[in-house]
Amino acid sequence: VAKATTGGYDGRGVWLLDDPDQASALLDQGVSLIVEERVRLRRELATMVARSPWGQVAAYPVVETVQDGGICVEVLAPAPGLHPDRAVEAQQLAIRIATELDVVGILAVELFETSAGQLLVNELAMRPHNSGHWTIEGARTSQFEQHLRAVLDYPLGETSLTAPAVAVANVLGGDPGGVGIDERLHHLFAADPGARVHLYGKQPRPGRKLGHVTVLGDDIGQVRRRARAAARWLREGTGD
Amino acid sequence: VAKATTGGYDGRGVWLLDDPDQASALLDQGVSLIVEERVRLRRELATMVARSPWGQVAAYPVVETVQDGGICVEVLAPAPGLHPDRAVEAQQLAIRIATELDVVGILAVELFETSAGQLLVNELAMRPHNSGHWTIEGARTSQFEQHLRAVLDYPLGETSLTAPAVAVANVLGGDPGGVGIDERLHHLFAADPGARVHLYGKQPRPGRKLGHVTVLGDDIGQVRRRARAAARWLREGTGD
Repeated sequence: VAKATTGGYDGRGVWLLDDPDQASALLDQGVSLIVEERVRLRRELATMVARSPWGQVAAYPVVETVQDGGICVEVLAPAPGLHPDRAVEAQQLAIRIATELDVVGILAVELFETSAGQLLVNELAMRPHNSGHWTIEGARTSQFEQHLRAVLDYPLGETSLTAPAVAVANVLGGDPGGVGIDERLHHLFAADPGARVHLYGKQPRPGRKLGHVTVLGDDIGQVRRRARAAARWLREGTGD
Repeated sequence: VAKATTGGYDGRGVWLLDDPDQASALLDQGVSLIVEERVRLRRELATMVARSPWGQVAAYPVVETVQDGGICVEVLAPAPGLHPDRAVEAQQLAIRIATELDVVGILAVELFETSAGQLLVNELAMRPHNSGHWTIEGARTSQFEQHLRAVLDYPLGETSLTAPAVAVANVLGGDPGGVGIDERLHHLFAADPGARVHLYGKQPRPGRKLGHVTVLGDDIGQVRRRARAAARWLREGTGD
């Protein structure tokens, strides 16, 4: 796997290469690369911790992040079917990273769960992060409040779930549909009064994260279907 | 019970009279009065509905409002020990009032539950209301979002509880304690990481509602104790 050393996100700046000639072609374009071993994945997970200057650390439940073409399209909390020991391992890993790097505020740790069941660190984000938007309604303390508490050196807030199952689906920029976003919101709220919609007011561009929908409930399969249906419906209204 | 015809709130402008001379004394002061029969109360309840111009109505769970000296000091959601039939009766009453008065937005209906078990309307507030602050964390849709949805004629949001038991305790203006509000917040967050504190930035005055604390959990007795302890602790830091 070749990665550009700067400017990579949402799958940009990442190439799966079959032979060294492809790397040469990239280098000829002036891209500065690092090369890593390809990992056989079962899925991607993420864990989030907050740390204060005083040294208090609070860890959120581990989530599964579902990717499509290098872009995170869904977040499921807690990560379905994750063994409790594995969850604790992920949280301890994040706490250790936050402590050793002397992080203040929110740290999101993106993880690979390999086919062999091992946890590998994929990426670090030292800020409130897309993989933590579920905490706005799904955790007792949102990542944004937690970040402020940490930075202000206040004691950190409770990180537990507010429902047994929480699903977030990202609203990506899409093609213009026949119906605009205002009317689509209206229809969505009528169809699903429990869907929580967040639109970021960003300029629409195909594949760009323009917002997200959070659904809380008892069954992860059900909340996932609702969140996904809502995000897909809104996507079609986001084109120019 | 004599009440001033204007300007009454938080127990101001209400007098429990023993004989007509006391009413004369008030009238001599230039107060314009209405007089009502005294009601034997078991407790006070409140119910909240939202109504859109299109005519959709959504009712929140009925809550108990605990009063001290005419001021609401606690709100318990759902109202402990309230018979489900009584709760439905209260919600239907509020829906009927909202519909007949053609209300758009949030309507809070304050109720007396009499010793005989009857529901009587005490007061109406056609706006987001102190008795509905529990919805910020305790309901799937807060009263503020619901008000906007209603006014914008959007379909209304889910009104169900996010936890089995929700308690709010109001932070009233108190006497200056030895420790200021910032330090008190710090101590509170350390002692109870799940307490949700809202301070309104109002000028402190003894007995004035300066904020509230919300606690969510499984047992109403426990969340009530936590909310009350938090509000009492903060109160002492609110003096000048």
